[in-house]
Amino acid sequence: MHRTRVRVVEDALDANNTIARANRDDFDRHDVSVVNLMSAPGAGKTSLLERALGEPLQDLRVGVLEGDVQGSFDADRLASLHVPVTQLNTGSGFGGECHLDANMVRSAMPALPLHDIDLLVIENVGNLVCPAEFRVGEDVRAMVCSVTEGEEKPIKYPLMFRACELVVINKIDLLPHLDFDLDKFLYHLDQVNPDAERMLVSARTGEGVAQWREWLLKIAQRQRAIA
Amino acid sequence: MHRTRVRVVEDALDANNTIARANRDDFDRHDVSVVNLMSAPGAGKTSLLERALGEPLQDLRVGVLEGDVQGSFDADRLASLHVPVTQLNTGSGFGGECHLDANMVRSAMPALPLHDIDLLVIENVGNLVCPAEFRVGEDVRAMVCSVTEGEEKPIKYPLMFRACELVVINKIDLLPHLDFDLDKFLYHLDQVNPDAERMLVSARTGEGVAQWREWLLKIAQRQRAIA
Repeated sequence: MHRTRVRVVEDALDANNTIARANRDDFDRHDVSVVNLMSAPGAGKTSLLERALGEPLQDLRVGVLEGDVQGSFDADRLASLHVPVTQLNTGSGFGGECHLDANMVRSAMPALPLHDIDLLVIENVGNLVCPAEFRVGEDVRAMVCSVTEGEEKPIKYPLMFRACELVVINKIDLLPHLDFDLDKFLYHLDQVNPDAERMLVSARTGEGVAQWREWLLKIAQRQRAIA
Repeated sequence: MHRTRVRVVEDALDANNTIARANRDDFDRHDVSVVNLMSAPGAGKTSLLERALGEPLQDLRVGVLEGDVQGSFDADRLASLHVPVTQLNTGSGFGGECHLDANMVRSAMPALPLHDIDLLVIENVGNLVCPAEFRVGEDVRAMVCSVTEGEEKPIKYPLMFRACELVVINKIDLLPHLDFDLDKFLYHLDQVNPDAERMLVSARTGEGVAQWREWLLKIAQRQRAIA
């Protein structure tokens, strides 16, 4: 007798992963690489995207999916750079959802210009907890951490720091004015994710932005090489 | 015919509110005033509590309930000031809960020294979305917002800014080094919560901390006057 075992989808995360895989298939079909960009509120995700996309990234065509509880503040900033931006608001939950999940991104799929871009950056809701729990169909997860947030963040929010391939350490222009011990931060990061790539940048002064732009290019090229 | 209508408890928030009221009854029975203190990660809640509680607040006996996804980093800092601190970790959820709810606080109740304190400050998980959705039995909600987070935060996270009676604007020592327009921030705050009390402080330099200490005293006295 032939028997096939089908594991029952057990919980919300299983359902999320199923939909994330469907999203991923759609992105792959269009040869679009996808970065899920996360951070605490105000760490500087939008400013770093403005810096990265303000001038052409070689011939790379980049789009942004902007996740916010409410409003289109960040999307308006990026749209002014003539970057194709799609706004996704999570405010329909009771006080608004604190993260993007795969189904929210799926609902935005028809609005995404997948034929016209090579790289999609999904700017997640500002939050160091839940966004790390939900895959949305991305190839790679990256986070921004501001030096104003303190050295202990990797220890306090380990899932987020563990989930990411890249940690962008932003606002380094403020280091002379803070009691922030960069070595201690990096030591804490090594404790939870020693393999994470890390870079020091200032979206305000532009320091380190070239490296951030190169990383975005590298991700798109890497995914093309896989495909 | 006498008819009594009982509204069925409908959803998670109703259940949360029922438990929050039970917590509140317990706090009232012990004449303990309760502040629910919220912010984004790294805005400076713990530093402001260190500043406020580093020396006696007249004869006020203050305790802290420390909410974190994981670890006891902040609790250890406060305990070194000989403040009674109770640690509450939310990490048992799949990636850790991103907020405190009434039932979590209820589970901590037996560990709280309610006989020995007049004011309990509940330091919530660092997050600008979900903590505002869950009452935990507090008398008053307050938040800390750092000037490094940008002027648009009240517009992007309106529920949080609307939920709070007090907005502590922290890290003002960094203002000379930021492109932060305080007037624009206050304008946005007025749009979502014109009645919110606001104060400018720097936990680093101590500027404005006297006002923050007075506010904590005032809350405890106000609640005593009501009781």
